[in-house]
Amino acid sequence: MVQGYELYYWPSIQGRGEFVRLALEEAGVEYDDVARRDEGAMFRFLDGMKVATPPFAPPFLRAGRLLIAQTANILLFLGARHGLAPPSEAGRLWTHQLQLTITDILAEVHDTHHPISTNRFYEEQKAEARARSRDFLKERLPKFLGYFERVISANRKGKGHLVGAKLTYVDLSVFQLVEGLRYAFPRGAKRTERNCPAVVALHDHVERRPRIAAYLNSDRRISFNRDGIFRRYKELDL
Amino acid sequence: MVQGYELYYWPSIQGRGEFVRLALEEAGVEYDDVARRDEGAMFRFLDGMKVATPPFAPPFLRAGRLLIAQTANILLFLGARHGLAPPSEAGRLWTHQLQLTITDILAEVHDTHHPISTNRFYEEQKAEARARSRDFLKERLPKFLGYFERVISANRKGKGHLVGAKLTYVDLSVFQLVEGLRYAFPRGAKRTERNCPAVVALHDHVERRPRIAAYLNSDRRISFNRDGIFRRYKELDL
Repeated sequence: MVQGYELYYWPSIQGRGEFVRLALEEAGVEYDDVARRDEGAMFRFLDGMKVATPPFAPPFLRAGRLLIAQTANILLFLGARHGLAPPSEAGRLWTHQLQLTITDILAEVHDTHHPISTNRFYEEQKAEARARSRDFLKERLPKFLGYFERVISANRKGKGHLVGAKLTYVDLSVFQLVEGLRYAFPRGAKRTERNCPAVVALHDHVERRPRIAAYLNSDRRISFNRDGIFRRYKELDL
Repeated sequence: MVQGYELYYWPSIQGRGEFVRLALEEAGVEYDDVARRDEGAMFRFLDGMKVATPPFAPPFLRAGRLLIAQTANILLFLGARHGLAPPSEAGRLWTHQLQLTITDILAEVHDTHHPISTNRFYEEQKAEARARSRDFLKERLPKFLGYFERVISANRKGKGHLVGAKLTYVDLSVFQLVEGLRYAFPRGAKRTERNCPAVVALHDHVERRPRIAAYLNSDRRISFNRDGIFRRYKELDL
């Protein structure tokens, strides 16, 4: 069952790949972060007509004969294999539903610095980025984090997790979301966190888990920078 | 197994709910489109602290004791129950991966008319909407539809479907995507479709399926309008 995985993702950013890396690290399984030693390998899958299930974009994971793309889909797969999601259908769907809400906010975070075009530089859409960031920090971020706060609080089996009594992959993703928000929007994140103590406590719990703590201190953890989804531009932290 | 479903979605638009409606219609199962007779019922789930698995947003589906949100997640569930996805793990993940790529393009379509703020009127972000639409039609739409074209063409079991030899829920979603694009961007869609004959053929195939054809001719099918994801503004069809 447990086997060597191959992860394919941009080698110089955390980005969406980081949500997969965190799950692999917490699961304690071996994986090869392929593009960090051979970036070309990634493109062979993206361009290849020979691939039966071609990814639209990284990240993607090779697991034996499977080639799986889309962050939430990879986590659905890993969650079932490595006990990072409940085994029941209801629990599996609920965990995945929360992860897809993470997918949604990540797309919005990306658009705070690229509201007009992914293909053009930030500097070419700076005014629009400012307007979009203002809206994100004022309206969207409180709505998303407030939702996760409510879910944690309503979880009776709880202990501060989002789903059931145990850690799931979506707990790891909320940790990473908070990490990214703190990097990109130090002031905006702090303001919203004040109303989300359960989210902050979950972040802190994940950070202290032995495998995650070891990973964060290793050189496998890439630093945040201005090429990822979460980017720090002082003028956007309104 | 087959039971009465309750669908909860905005009653006056196709929106994301339409992807679920199409799957329910093709499956030939009974469902109650609840908010079309009682909009308040939807809000009781959204606001309710009493709900164990509260949705972040519509659509959501009630199936017995399950309450499932996120369009792609609902389709994952329905696909497995009603033969609208392959039964194998590999096939199930691949179908879902394609559906999540539909999720991605839908978020981008939404942002063509609301690139700055979901909470403000289109008229307040018209210039930015024009810039974003230009980029969408020139760069993003050809990339997404070209991807689906490649997937259909590379499917050896084929017959023009995206996955394997039979219709899946993602075929229905590509049909709806093409429908929406034609409504919102008649010129832009036509331009891109020229390079995507397999996507167009799949659209036409789905349109002619007896249950889908009957649905499209019924009053259960809401017309496109300027409140949904796909909106027609002449000035954005560049």
